[in-house]
Amino acid sequence: MARKFNFSAGPAMLPTAVIERAQQEMLDWNDSGMSVMEMSHRGKEYMSIAAKAEKDLREVMAIPDNYKVLFLQGGASSQFAMIPLNLMGDKTSADYINTGMWSKKAIAEAKRYITVNIAADTSEGGFTSVPTQAELKLNSDAAYVHYTPNETIGGVEFDYIPETNGVPLIADMSSTILSRPIDVSKFGMIYAGAQKNIGPAGLTIVIIRDDLLGTASASCPTMFNYSTHAENDSMYNTPATYSWYMAGLVFEWIKEQGGLEGMAEVNKRKADKLYAAIDATDFYGSPVAINGRSWMNVPFTLADAGLDAEFLKGAAERGLVTLKGHRSVGGMRASIYNAMPEEGVDALVAFMQEFASKQG
Amino acid sequence: MARKFNFSAGPAMLPTAVIERAQQEMLDWNDSGMSVMEMSHRGKEYMSIAAKAEKDLREVMAIPDNYKVLFLQGGASSQFAMIPLNLMGDKTSADYINTGMWSKKAIAEAKRYITVNIAADTSEGGFTSVPTQAELKLNSDAAYVHYTPNETIGGVEFDYIPETNGVPLIADMSSTILSRPIDVSKFGMIYAGAQKNIGPAGLTIVIIRDDLLGTASASCPTMFNYSTHAENDSMYNTPATYSWYMAGLVFEWIKEQGGLEGMAEVNKRKADKLYAAIDATDFYGSPVAINGRSWMNVPFTLADAGLDAEFLKGAAERGLVTLKGHRSVGGMRASIYNAMPEEGVDALVAFMQEFASKQG
Repeated sequence: MARKFNFSAGPAMLPTAVIERAQQEMLDWNDSGMSVMEMSHRGKEYMSIAAKAEKDLREVMAIPDNYKVLFLQGGASSQFAMIPLNLMGDKTSADYINTGMWSKKAIAEAKRYITVNIAADTSEGGFTSVPTQAELKLNSDAAYVHYTPNETIGGVEFDYIPETNGVPLIADMSSTILSRPIDVSKFGMIYAGAQKNIGPAGLTIVIIRDDLLGTASASCPTMFNYSTHAENDSMYNTPATYSWYMAGLVFEWIKEQGGLEGMAEVNKRKADKLYAAIDATDFYGSPVAINGRSWMNVPFTLADAGLDAEFLKGAAERGLVTLKGHRSVGGMRASIYNAMPEEGVDALVAFMQEFASKQG
Repeated sequence: MARKFNFSAGPAMLPTAVIERAQQEMLDWNDSGMSVMEMSHRGKEYMSIAAKAEKDLREVMAIPDNYKVLFLQGGASSQFAMIPLNLMGDKTSADYINTGMWSKKAIAEAKRYITVNIAADTSEGGFTSVPTQAELKLNSDAAYVHYTPNETIGGVEFDYIPETNGVPLIADMSSTILSRPIDVSKFGMIYAGAQKNIGPAGLTIVIIRDDLLGTASASCPTMFNYSTHAENDSMYNTPATYSWYMAGLVFEWIKEQGGLEGMAEVNKRKADKLYAAIDATDFYGSPVAINGRSWMNVPFTLADAGLDAEFLKGAAERGLVTLKGHRSVGGMRASIYNAMPEEGVDALVAFMQEFASKQG
């Protein structure tokens, strides 16, 4: 069957060219006589794959030399504990900005280890907007400031990088990393689960400034200590070798698309088209404030929720799948990460227009 | 190039039939129009893959119903902290049997959280034997007894299951799981990194008895708490979906080979052939006591270590690769996990005989 346009929030589509290459290399990588999955992580073949992936990510994101790039396991959910355990140092509190479900999870876990100050909270509005810089109540004595630049479930994305006046800024970029250029130097640490814009699930990328290493609490498990991984090039133990390899193929693909400038151009166009289709008729609605609309996760509702099932059925018949909104939000959600082709968004927009004119 | 016989200790060979099937399904799993890597872990397609894998593993290992099977991230190295954090309960100490490098690592991490009693220690003999049951100094008040049934680096394997008189027995089976039938009911918990006998790196299987859940310490990170994963069918967060799928293909393959009885028959024959070749001449030597010799990891030395490089070169020319011993042991190590075909062992034995007669 033809490949579908899969609007899943993650794991999500990967570039077809990347999967085809992985398929081709599956049984025999580069005349090595083995699959990448079968390679010792200490062997020269795999070491070259791992090093190339890091080099390409550094190039694509223009990561400064005073940042380590770690390829870890455990997902963003493990980071929620690792962040306070590693970064609290001799401080007693940290600032968290609460803009949705993932912020909330990060906060709940952090509270088990450190006093959490909520610097801003958009829950009253149902997590449909981002706080302004002026609204952030930041503490100069905080160990760090944590926020979620893009909330995957709410589809809310910051349109600015918070200014923290020297306090390290920590960002869960799981669903926005690599979608456009960012200035890494403004962050103390960036982390991201791979399964949206990077590669297969089971890999978590951490980009951390050197001065934030070496301050883990005494009770921090060795495997939760960033220094453990930084000092061993993410090979203290066996890493998720195949996911790391696939991530490397994605980084190469991004370079071929013109890097993050190229991705940003297409991503903006895709998002603009989809929001335009939502805004064009009262048949559809977006719950999110205009300046907080995500490029990556686009929730939208039908004015008549009684038509949701029929909408999903008609979409699926056209190969447009995984459009059902998160159970906590309802309606629809179209996740349009880097690997979603523009034709996929065009097909969705065409279906939305057709459905609205038939039912409206 | 032809596929090689790869004697890596892990990541290691996978069955060729499994990789071929993964290759064939890579772009479009079962007419879903997507790769397994791209599937939402909450979707019906992936849920069926995950459930089938667990069902097959339960069948293959005859896992009793009062055990949970967890598909986690983080490797055995994460388990080293998770075990005391989850299982110490109101006890203050645990017993550890020290038979090699991996036991030592488990002990070092456990000591950070609990008093460790060393029930036996074979380090004086250079980790080349297993202690007898009578030599184990077990404490009836220990929270648990931890041991490593097969030491991947030393190639030392227990030829019995320790009797612990009701104290939960915890086993790091990373390099021996699925190599033969075992009586799961004798264990409180079994864990194993996937990258030897299960599938690609990045997945860790935990088989835990129900009564050992729910006793994690207050400071245990949510992602390190077995209950978190047991209560959510290993989908509290996004699991390593592709590795889980690959593991499922391996479990199916094991069933096709006659289950663990079938694997044991071939594995014993492979090990017997290799040890016979080592013992047949003084040109080669095995450092390991006869009753402690591993079926899976076979270290051996050349009487003249000056010939090591030539041996490795000649082997590589015949497609026999990754035979160099661990840096801590030296010599050679042939890891002959389930996926190493008998022909691979035959080829190695033939080369060993040829090399010895030419050089000896």
